[in-house]
Parts: sequence; structure tokens; C-alpha cells
Amino acid sequence: MEFYGEIKLDKEDSQHLYIQLYKALKTLILKDNIKGDQRLPPIRKLAKALSINVVTVVNAYDILEKEGFVYKKIGSGTYVSPQILGSKEKMIGVPEEEGFSLIDQGYIQVGENMINFASATPMPELFPVADFKAVLNEVLDRDKGYAFGYQESQGYYPLREILKKYIQSYGIDTEIDNIQVISGAQQGIDLIAKGILNYGDTVIVESPSYTGAIAAFRSRGAKIVDIALEEDGILLEELEKKIIIHRPKLIYIMPNFQNPTGISYSGEKKQKILEICRKYQVVVVEDDYLSELNFYSMNNQTLKAIDVHQQVIYIKSFSKIFMPGLRLGFLVIPSRFYDQLIVAKHSSDISTPGLLQRAFALYLEKGIWQGHLSYMEEQYKERFDCMVQSLKREMPKEVQCLLPKGGVNFWLTLPQGISPKKLYEEALKENIVFAPGHLFFLGKEDFGQLRLSIAAVSKDEIEVGIEKLGKIISKLLIKESKKKESFEHYKPIL
Amino acid sequence: MEFYGEIKLDKEDSQHLYIQLYKALKTLILKDNIKGDQRLPPIRKLAKALSINVVTVVNAYDILEKEGFVYKKIGSGTYVSPQILGSKEKMIGVPEEEGFSLIDQGYIQVGENMINFASATPMPELFPVADFKAVLNEVLDRDKGYAFGYQESQGYYPLREILKKYIQSYGIDTEIDNIQVISGAQQGIDLIAKGILNYGDTVIVESPSYTGAIAAFRSRGAKIVDIALEEDGILLEELEKKIIIHRPKLIYIMPNFQNPTGISYSGEKKQKILEICRKYQVVVVEDDYLSELNFYSMNNQTLKAIDVHQQVIYIKSFSKIFMPGLRLGFLVIPSRFYDQLIVAKHSSDISTPGLLQRAFALYLEKGIWQGHLSYMEEQYKERFDCMVQSLKREMPKEVQCLLPKGGVNFWLTLPQGISPKKLYEEALKENIVFAPGHLFFLGKEDFGQLRLSIAAVSKDEIEVGIEKLGKIISKLLIKESKKKESFEHYKPIL
Repeated sequence: MEFYGEIKLDKEDSQHLYIQLYKALKTLILKDNIKGDQRLPPIRKLAKALSINVVTVVNAYDILEKEGFVYKKIGSGTYVSPQILGSKEKMIGVPEEEGFSLIDQGYIQVGENMINFASATPMPELFPVADFKAVLNEVLDRDKGYAFGYQESQGYYPLREILKKYIQSYGIDTEIDNIQVISGAQQGIDLIAKGILNYGDTVIVESPSYTGAIAAFRSRGAKIVDIALEEDGILLEELEKKIIIHRPKLIYIMPNFQNPTGISYSGEKKQKILEICRKYQVVVVEDDYLSELNFYSMNNQTLKAIDVHQQVIYIKSFSKIFMPGLRLGFLVIPSRFYDQLIVAKHSSDISTPGLLQRAFALYLEKGIWQGHLSYMEEQYKERFDCMVQSLKREMPKEVQCLLPKGGVNFWLTLPQGISPKKLYEEALKENIVFAPGHLFFLGKEDFGQLRLSIAAVSKDEIEVGIEKLGKIISKLLIKESKKKESFEHYKPIL
Repeated sequence: MEFYGEIKLDKEDSQHLYIQLYKALKTLILKDNIKGDQRLPPIRKLAKALSINVVTVVNAYDILEKEGFVYKKIGSGTYVSPQILGSKEKMIGVPEEEGFSLIDQGYIQVGENMINFASATPMPELFPVADFKAVLNEVLDRDKGYAFGYQESQGYYPLREILKKYIQSYGIDTEIDNIQVISGAQQGIDLIAKGILNYGDTVIVESPSYTGAIAAFRSRGAKIVDIALEEDGILLEELEKKIIIHRPKLIYIMPNFQNPTGISYSGEKKQKILEICRKYQVVVVEDDYLSELNFYSMNNQTLKAIDVHQQVIYIKSFSKIFMPGLRLGFLVIPSRFYDQLIVAKHSSDISTPGLLQRAFALYLEKGIWQGHLSYMEEQYKERFDCMVQSLKREMPKEVQCLLPKGGVNFWLTLPQGISPKKLYEEALKENIVFAPGHLFFLGKEDFGQLRLSIAAVSKDEIEVGIEKLGKIISKLLIKESKKKESFEHYKPIL
């Protein structure tokens, strides 16, 4: 009980007491103040010592257990997990509270006149509302009550039929039976976690990666291992090495215009990844969230298109190029996983709303889709080009950016000494928001990076916003070099 | 490897080889032919012995692992779980293939002229399509693209606001912040499993119960323990005894017009359950799928309405009284579970489609809802009364049915010697379908019961269908008594 003194709880704080306690204990565990297999104080004792409610302690211990920091022995108490210590690859059950993709979800309070580089989802002004309204009404007149009955779990058959044709045009050949309609890509990831992962299985992800995917895998009790990205994809040697050590069940990657980095994998690397994963029987999960927005890349082929051995589960989202609030997407599933995934879908939400599936099927059937896609490509390309020009023009040369060849995300690395969090604060004063890079790393490490997205900003906003950001960074650079000077100034004479 | 001989696989069979192998091994384990902690044959060896692909064995072992029948030691092999043996309360990870609520989902091929007592969801003819079309269009004109943007994970605020008022009229007082919009009740159950259960936790359910809930809990690796139902709810002594033995995390119950039995809990029992669960800190999950359809009960109060100590997570579905394909429902969550459940929602599907939430909010706001509910009550009551009359008139006196006081389900117990499966086959010949009772039991035990639902049949169909069912049962009864006679006839003279 010697660590009591270090726990400071603030009853006036807006954060729940149990969250405060959980965080304090987690810090003690991570700092190694409480050792592996050491017993935590009995609930009542700790509650008394800290003058808090018993339930508060119960809840804090529960979260720690969920995150794998402690384990419980029935009738004996709560103990610190030994395996968590000394390992950076934590097995944790729920995502960190902070940075849990809250930005993507609109939790950053974006005011009326703010320039929003944080959101990677398109502005509602771009949505084809009139066309979609027309197909909705047509479906209602045609199908009446049947549009609101239960839909089969696999998805509305005519929709799967036309989706098969749609991906054929992207070089993916599949059977209708291998297509599973999902309520958005996030659900696709969750179903894969549910259907394929066992508790304690390992999953490999890119570093940095999409936090929503990591959350879904963690929620199944998966251990997450990450692999660094270079210009043309993840490091292959690291991949093979980590596969041998960790024996992962699956790998989750975004080979085209990766989120958050914008990187695209080379054709050779795509091929090699399939070979390595085949050798070690690792399932490949490909998240294709916007391969359509291919402006300057020679090769935006999906892994699924070259998947001759049926190793790839393909996730297709329409949130970035159509309308995110529809919550519609689909999976292409190799037959051997089929049963597991349909059971996972059924036990998750039975089926995706039939009305929306029927309307989207009609929308695709009528050929309105192609026109919309061209329009979105045009809109995005204009912004994309504007962003490239603005970055080249406005950013101090110390800022690094590997320019992407498509998509909506730009990944910047700030010069040493300039913190993205500081930049975030300064930018906010100028009504600009973006996504700090630490949000996308497993351990929320800060490598001085940030993601700028062009999905929710106009051309004018890009020009103004990047100019302002460039100026803020320049100012911070001057301050930084002054700090160095003054440090040198006060250097003791040896 | 002595059990090889017992494994028979049929390559011509429509069932995948790995499923066949999985089933064969499971049977061997359950029959105790392979003992606890005994090692299964190495994958390659078994594949060779059975002349099948290595992957087939891998897949079969994987399913066994998922279901908790075996465990793997890295670098050593696959072993039979010791704890599974000798225990009827199996810890299994995926639902059994058979009977996985496929009927509710429309997987029984119901032909044009079939009388469908199997489905517990209303006929599309009852849906208020015109009214809903009007609100959909009003929302689209009002909100335009914003109707298709991401909605916050908790749900569209104005919808939560009006839902708060709606349940207030049923005696439930809550804050808007404690309401979480969900994509149907199944998702609600899944989110609770995800947010609250740890791998290996125990869940108590009623016996019989809703199989979709059991599937969601099992999918989190939960151990399921069931408790028998009597006329006024589960057996309290059994509840307390099993809580002490199994230390469950939560209990899942449907206190009003339970599915499948139609039973309603007495007010006293509702109160007692809350007391017992409070004493042992068991979370109560109440699935309120149709307390509205209260025809003759004196007390259809929900547990949530009497939940002074914030122990109850309340799940409200509109699938039975509104339109199942909308996939809309909500949870009322005690504050201490709030964070866990919103994280679970976000990692499951980010949010429920905004357009449908907005349209439903407007539908409730405009007060069309009350009219629709009265209409549904009237429609259902007519059928309910017709069902009661038909059962009284047509069923042989040997058939038992505890008549429910509301809802849509009737639970029949056949006289000894008459199998619901036999009845199902005979009924099918007469174009009648229903749900055999074994589907609703944990171990799929057959106690000679069946569920007849009035949701998807007209008054005429009820009259004709019950008359025919009665006649089939009478015939089977005569056969059965003849069998007994002939058995007696051949009785050896002692």
C-alpha cells in the first residue's frame, strides 16, 4: 500500500473519479512502481484510504483488467499482469480515451469559420442528395413495406449482384456469395475481428494506422504489433521477422493512399506481402477506403485484384467518396471464412437497413454512380492540386512531406524541436484544426508529425489555411533557434 | 491416434470438409473419447491419415479452439480443454450452426401460400410506409447533405431528446446523456457484451431464451448459465444459487411477454430479482422488445422503471411494433457503464445511419407514432384473441399452453411421445411453419415444445392454421397410443 501517496484524485474534476483512479494506477504499473504479480490493495481498503466509494475502485480495477494490466483471482484479489511489463506491445482491451478517432467523428468543436484539415470525410455540400432522394422514393413506391422488413444478413441480393460488377471494373473477380454487405467499413473490421480472432491472437498493423481498426481488434483482446512504413509500404524484413516472433492471425493494411500517411504500396511490395503472408498463413485484411481517388499513381491495384490464393479479406467503404452517414460498405470474403463472418454479422446487428441497401442498389443500377464518382474525383483533384501547390509555396523547407499520388491525406513531419501539439494550439487561435500525428500510433508516440486532410475544406480554405500554418511554423522555428542561441549564450565557460 | 477410425468424412457432402471434421472431433470430445489435456494429433499427421488437406485440419482445430473445446500451446500442439468435460454449461465461442435464429431471419423458405407461425416480426403490410416516406422527404428537404454526414456515436440529439419523453410515459426517468441510439436490439446486446464482458465471464439467461442474445454473449467468450422459467419468471432460489456458484457479470432477461414463452414476470419477482442482483453486484440487462403490446396483464412495468439503484441496462427495440428493417432501437445506460458502451458503439459501426434517425425523430415529434401504436395494438389484439380462441377450440386437451397476457408468442408443450420435429415435418406438408422449441434452449434440448407467433399471420390464417395443427397433433396422438398398444400386444408373457 506504499503507493497510496502517489494517487491524487480531484473530486472537482470533470473526469469521473474512477477514470482518474484507473489512470493513476496504470501510470504506477507502467512506471513499474507496482510489480508484476503484485497484488493490488483490497477494494474496500483502497476506497477507505482514498475516501472514495467502493464502486469507484471496482470500476477502475475493471478497466485495468479489460486493458490487460491486471488479472483477477476469484476469492483472492486483483494482481498486476506480469507479461505487460517491459513490453511495448501491450495487450489491451479498450482503446485509450484520448485521440480515439474523435476528430474523424466530429468531436473537435469545429466552429462556423474554422478551416478543418482534421476531418477526412467529405463536406455535405458534395453529397448527391437530390439523386438519392429520387431513388429512395422510387424504392418506397416499388417495394412498399418490404423496404422495411428484415433483410437477409448477407445483404440485399440485387445490391450484391451489382457490387460484383462494380469491383469487376477494378479487376476484382468474385462470386456474389462472397460479398457481404456491411454497415460501413468500421463494422467490416469489427466483424473480421469477431469472426476470425480468438482472445489473445496477434494482429499486425501499419505504423501509423487507422485508430478505429486498432480499437476493434483490441476490443477482441488482440495483441497489436505494428510495422514501420516507408515510401512504398511496410518494411518487408520487419514483417517477416515479426510474423516469425508473434505468429499473427492477420495483418491489416491500406495499400492505396494509406491513412494517415497517404503512402501507396509498390506493385512489387503488394506481391511480396501476399507471398510472405501465404508462407506463414497470415490472413490479409485490405481496407480499401479510397483507391478510386487515383490522381497521379501508376498503380492503384488492390491486393484483392492479385489475390489468386484467396488470402485477402477485402473491405470496401464508400464513406469518403459517397456519403458517410449512409453507413454502407461491403466485404469480399474468401469462402473458408464465409460461415464465421455471416454468423458475426448476424449476432452484431442482424442486417444492414434494407431501405438504404435497396436505394443504393438502384442508384448504382441507374448509372448515376459513375457521374457522381467523376464529379467527386474532379472536386477532390482540384483541392489535391491546390494543396500540393500551397504546401510547396508556403511551408518552410524544414518541413517534410512525402507527396501522395492520390487520396485526401497529407502527412507532414515538422522540424525537430517543434511539437505538433504546440502547433495545434497556435493553429486553433487562427481557427485552423488538423489531426496531430500521435493519434495514429499504437503507443500515441509523438514523432513530430501531423495529418492534413483535404476532404472537408474548399480550395480557398486550403490556400489561406496552409499559408497561415506555414507562417506559424516559421515563427516557431525562429523561437526554437533563439532558444538554442540563448542556451549557447548561457553556456558555462569550461 | 486411436480415434481415427471413428472419423468419417464425405467429400461428396455439401457441407465443407472442415465443418465435418470439426463436428466429428467435437463429438469425440463430448463423448469423452478424447480426454481433457490430451493432445490432438499433429495437423500434418491427421491430414495424411484422413487424406485431406492440411488447411482443412487447421480450420477444424480453429473452430474447436473458438468454441473452447481445445486450447493451443505455441510450438507444442493442440490440446483438449479440461474444463469443458463433465460440464453441461459449455464455454463456446460461436453459436451452433443449426437453429441459430435462422427462422426469425427468414431463412425458412416460406412459400407464397404458407401460414407462417415461425416469424415473430410483423408483416410488411402493417408498416406505415406512406407516413414514413413523408418524414423522410421532409428531413431531406430540411437537412440536405447533413442527413448523410456522420452522426455522433451516441445518436442524433433531437431523437434522444424525444426518446427520453417517450419512455417517461412508460415510467422510466432518465437523462438524455444516458440514452444511446443503436442499430436494433441485437446490436444493443452485442454492445453490452463488448463493453462489459471480459473473456470467460459468466452470463445468466432464461431457459428458454432468445438465441441471438446467447450468440452475442458466446461470441465474447462468455460462459452461459441458464435458469428455468416458471409461470411468473425465473426461479429465484436457482438464481441465487447459480449466482453464488458462477459469479456472473450480468443477467439477461425479458420480463414482459418473454421470448419464446410469452411469460410475464410478477411485480414481486421483478423487485426480488433487482434485490438479489444488487446484493451480488450482477448487472441486469432488460430486453424490452414489446412491453407495449399489453392486452390483459395488470403489470407490464419494466425493470428499468423500478431501477432506483441504477443496476439495469435497458434495451428497447422497435422491430416488433414498428419496422424491423429500419434497425433502430436505443439503450438506457447507467452512467458508470456509459464510457465503455460508447467506445463499444464507436468501434462497432461508428454510428447508426443519420437519415433514419432524423426521420424517426420527426415521426415521433409529429405525434404520428401514437396513432401507429394504437393501430398495431388493435391489429395484434385481434389476432391475439383469435389465437386464444383457436387454441382453446382446436388443440387436443393433451397439449399444454400457458396463455400469455400480451405480446405475440404462444408456447406449447406437446403430449409425451409427440416430437415437435415430427410435427414440424407434418405441418410443412400442409404449408404451415412454426419454431420448434429446441431452438431456444442452450443445449438445443427437445422438451416437446414449440413457439407459435402471431406476428406474421392474418386472423384467417390463424383459424385455418391452428385447426390443421390441432388435427395433425390428434393424428399423431392416435398413432402414439396405437404404438403403445402394439407394444403391449407384443409384451412377453412373464
